[in-house]
Amino acid sequence: MGATHRIAVIPGDGIGTEVVPEGLRILEAAASAFDFQLDYEQFHYASADYYTKTGTMLPDGWFDQLNRFDSIFFGAVGWPDVVPDHISLWGSLLQFRRHFDQYVSLRPVKLLPGITSPLAGREPGDVDFYVVRENTEGEYSSIGGKIFEGTDRETVIQETVMTRTGVDRILKYAFDLAQSRPKKHLTSATKSNGISISMPYWDQRVEAMAQNFADVAVDKYHIDILTANFVLHPDWFDVVVASNLFGDILSDLGPACTGTIGVAPSGNINPERKFPSLFEPVHGSAPDIAGKGIANPIGQIWSASMMLEHLGETEAAAAVMTAVEDVLAVGGDTLTPDMGGTATTKTLGEAVRRQFETNT
Amino acid sequence: MGATHRIAVIPGDGIGTEVVPEGLRILEAAASAFDFQLDYEQFHYASADYYTKTGTMLPDGWFDQLNRFDSIFFGAVGWPDVVPDHISLWGSLLQFRRHFDQYVSLRPVKLLPGITSPLAGREPGDVDFYVVRENTEGEYSSIGGKIFEGTDRETVIQETVMTRTGVDRILKYAFDLAQSRPKKHLTSATKSNGISISMPYWDQRVEAMAQNFADVAVDKYHIDILTANFVLHPDWFDVVVASNLFGDILSDLGPACTGTIGVAPSGNINPERKFPSLFEPVHGSAPDIAGKGIANPIGQIWSASMMLEHLGETEAAAAVMTAVEDVLAVGGDTLTPDMGGTATTKTLGEAVRRQFETNT
Ligand SMILES: CC(C)[C@H](C(=O)O)[C@@H](O)C(=O)O
Ligand SMILES: CC(C)[C@H](C(=O)O)[C@@H](O)C(=O)O
Repeated sequence: MGATHRIAVIPGDGIGTEVVPEGLRILEAAASAFDFQLDYEQFHYASADYYTKTGTMLPDGWFDQLNRFDSIFFGAVGWPDVVPDHISLWGSLLQFRRHFDQYVSLRPVKLLPGITSPLAGREPGDVDFYVVRENTEGEYSSIGGKIFEGTDRETVIQETVMTRTGVDRILKYAFDLAQSRPKKHLTSATKSNGISISMPYWDQRVEAMAQNFADVAVDKYHIDILTANFVLHPDWFDVVVASNLFGDILSDLGPACTGTIGVAPSGNINPERKFPSLFEPVHGSAPDIAGKGIANPIGQIWSASMMLEHLGETEAAAAVMTAVEDVLAVGGDTLTPDMGGTATTKTLGEAVRRQFETNT
Repeated sequence: MGATHRIAVIPGDGIGTEVVPEGLRILEAAASAFDFQLDYEQFHYASADYYTKTGTMLPDGWFDQLNRFDSIFFGAVGWPDVVPDHISLWGSLLQFRRHFDQYVSLRPVKLLPGITSPLAGREPGDVDFYVVRENTEGEYSSIGGKIFEGTDRETVIQETVMTRTGVDRILKYAFDLAQSRPKKHLTSATKSNGISISMPYWDQRVEAMAQNFADVAVDKYHIDILTANFVLHPDWFDVVVASNLFGDILSDLGPACTGTIGVAPSGNINPERKFPSLFEPVHGSAPDIAGKGIANPIGQIWSASMMLEHLGETEAAAAVMTAVEDVLAVGGDTLTPDMGGTATTKTLGEAVRRQFETNT
């Protein structure tokens, strides 16, 4: 009889509510195949529905409630017709990241078999890297304000805040990851030629950290040319470390280069395990396709695999990915529309689960 | 006998010094074919060489000296082995943009005949849009600082500053441009879900400006998914308006999607013509290929065409672009290595000039 893992499940909004059930189905299959227990509880806050009913995104006491779990399995949040994005996000996901000190956002970028890349001539194996994104500070600050509001002199200030603690710990995580991989190659995203205080500081900390990792090859690119190189040379990258905003951009662009952001997963990780980590697809709530049942469930299922890995269920995590790759390799109508097929969220989710059961 | 245009020429660093002569050659050919005068003067400041000799990037009095010209024809600046990028750029190009109030950075993104796009199945005509970038404020500020320097509590602040004047005038320019084009479609780049003060303000000004342009279709995307859409759906865009940083990113990524940033031009424009505008390729000084004579001269030549347009030499500007397109369409070894050929900067520049003379 294996371990018991306590999971808080938060589907959120839009396609979040459609893909989370597919993630749960594979988690249950994994628990029975690999002999561990999942003890999960669903929460319907962090959603526009909840906001409409209560006027807030989260109830009092959310921190203590969620803090009792080993991990949070999250869908997507945001429904701009009902609540402005900055309110819904700052009222939920960004609070989780900050209060649970999930300072690492780990986002694999991998071209999977069966998925056609928009990049000409790229094959699975050509693109396989990680974006390691700082997840608690930097450009995502809520400080700043307005002066002379409503007049022609109106001026708005928004502050970027970087701390040595915040920068060094994400760099350390990224260097450790690079060191553990065969290529041992770390790329830093910067913009120190234009953003003249915070980004030169970032560069300086990268140089300092590199001293401790003599076997890791380090390079850096300004974010503008780095995005260009994701398209022109995706095979150049191994581990890319970036500030909060740059990591956000690179972790949507990277998956787009592998065919669709619908497959991309992410871990919002507190490496010290002092607080629960949160696993969610990179995509958002997608109001344009919500309710149609055609959302790609792979981002959520892959996030389930990352969560299992984090929980120490390494074999189960690998088996989930094998099932995903086996099913995608079939291609064609097995895939959801964003990957060029005609499958629904449910049929694709079901296909992965069946494949998982066949394999294990 | 046509007009006389006074041009300040600043080659700068690295491949800037290699591509500027090709730009000048086509400008001279245009002057003689279209019967106008070019009166130009070269300046060797705004370069690492000048910095090494003098300890500054620009001499005292640069403003008055350059302000007497109708336009500035610029190569590229930056040589990080000699002077850190933030010093070289804040000491030159970024000063020009700010002091000459070149608040519009206009950057066409167009897939040209003969150039292979890294995007599968995209043909010339599929990608043809403008990035309109705010060029004087926003994320490129030099204010902020450090506290607790050198200790574990070290904290760095960098301020983004947006003003109503600054935001509204770039939006007005972009809406006017969109209105003048057949598709009349404007896309705004935002990140109002994560950056919670400046970007919601940007969105609000876009909504206000849209009231004056009922015939322009407006949409907005957060910058993360927008970069993904540049790769997945480059045919969606017509005029993309963006803040200083987001415009910087999009105007490297866009050209990468059209094959190489080596062809991309830009205008740093003061639309009121109170100060000289500056025309330069989007690419930088490229230390990795500098001195080899293989830099792509098309970005500089296309910048020459944009400058001619700005100076009112509309026919000459168009003829330069026709020559460029005719030569690129030949493809193969006529192209520089970044486009898959074996040409040198000089042979390609020369081919464009000859084609121009044949055409005119
Ligand atoms: C060199 C650098 C400061 C500059 C910028 O970021 O504006 C360049 O990338 C550009 O796009 O013109
Ligand atoms: C929804 C948004 C605030 C969020 C972010 O920018 O971090 C999302 O884009 C992501 O990448 O998780």
